[in-house]
Amino acid sequence: MGEVSPPRAYEIVVAWVEERVLLGQLGVGDFLPSERELAGMLGVSRPAVREGVRSLQAQGVLHSSVGAGRAGGTQVTAVPAGALARLLRLHVALANFPLDDVVEVRVALERLSVRLACARATDEDLVRVGEQLQAMRDATTREEFNDADAAFHVAIAQSSGNRLSTDTTIAIRESVRPPILRGMARLSHEEYDELAVDLMREHEAIHAAVLARDAPVAEALVEVHVREAWRRLRVVD
Amino acid sequence: MGEVSPPRAYEIVVAWVEERVLLGQLGVGDFLPSERELAGMLGVSRPAVREGVRSLQAQGVLHSSVGAGRAGGTQVTAVPAGALARLLRLHVALANFPLDDVVEVRVALERLSVRLACARATDEDLVRVGEQLQAMRDATTREEFNDADAAFHVAIAQSSGNRLSTDTTIAIRESVRPPILRGMARLSHEEYDELAVDLMREHEAIHAAVLARDAPVAEALVEVHVREAWRRLRVVD
Repeated sequence: MGEVSPPRAYEIVVAWVEERVLLGQLGVGDFLPSERELAGMLGVSRPAVREGVRSLQAQGVLHSSVGAGRAGGTQVTAVPAGALARLLRLHVALANFPLDDVVEVRVALERLSVRLACARATDEDLVRVGEQLQAMRDATTREEFNDADAAFHVAIAQSSGNRLSTDTTIAIRESVRPPILRGMARLSHEEYDELAVDLMREHEAIHAAVLARDAPVAEALVEVHVREAWRRLRVVD
Repeated sequence: MGEVSPPRAYEIVVAWVEERVLLGQLGVGDFLPSERELAGMLGVSRPAVREGVRSLQAQGVLHSSVGAGRAGGTQVTAVPAGALARLLRLHVALANFPLDDVVEVRVALERLSVRLACARATDEDLVRVGEQLQAMRDATTREEFNDADAAFHVAIAQSSGNRLSTDTTIAIRESVRPPILRGMARLSHEEYDELAVDLMREHEAIHAAVLARDAPVAEALVEVHVREAWRRLRVVD
């Protein structure tokens, strides 16, 4: 086995937090010891503690706020979605994840999302989905339209009752926002108008299928919808 | 809209890198300016630069090495898998992602994984999958068996030819390693022996279906396999 280099100072801090989280000793809402206390306990500098905190903040595990007493401090949090989305968006941009790879995973997750929504969406959930349809009709620019389109998929994902499915579906949709906007920008007026009409109609059909709690139809509709939009926007790396 | 607080120093660094990545100006293999140069350019301290680097390192986007000249430095990298796995594992441990939610997403991703493997696995890929079957037979402890079991799923995921599918499937399997090991530890000798035999047989059937390039059968087998193992291990948060 090769030589293992000793951990960097910030890694000691990250490991300390991760270990306690994995053992259930640190949970959501818990505050970490102060920066000074952690530095003393772990024998590292305060900047190293801050570096470790930033690392875990990037994973949506910690949140640092400034302020006196308990108004400030570093707390264990419950916001993985943003961290997941940022991570995926960067790696898509780096072409670590080719866009054709992304669409396959997106289809699998949107199908799961809509199947779970058929089973578990509440009336309030479905009202929110309907509101996104209206936002699409009201959009006056291509970017507004795309934002409402994405919000429709987010609303469906949020009706799934499955937090991981919700967060990963949202993260993947977010990660392809730049290439989708580029694709939309390349369309002529005519191409865009036709596409907008079709996307609107497909969303209405998906919404109706979820209202009818018809999972097989909803899954098929969402798959066709995602693949068709991808193709027509000529989404490329 | 509420008041937006000015960005923290490390956030300026993160934003600088992210913007260039998203615009395609920074790509995999590129070196960042030195810590001193970045600090000067962005008007922040060197510790703030380091904090920003740790944040992006946690997302698998940067890699920092120590050394003289080009042997040291911070480079844009292509290793999202580890970052994804760490992120998911922490959030599973925090019960941000209840385990019942995780199994649904795992099933969707493993089905995609095996379907793509049926279409694209090379002979070398399939040899590697077979090697993991042998590793399961050779395992002498429950942990070794579980590691080989996970490696089997990883080998299938790596045969998919889809980097995002591979990385997310692996990350999700990794994220549930602690609860699976806890479930295994609770089994009696008899329960464990029976389970090991069944898991082995199910993996052999999945392998055979992939060899036969029979995607519908492979997908059905992997779904039953994942759900059954989950149930029998009584995997709980």
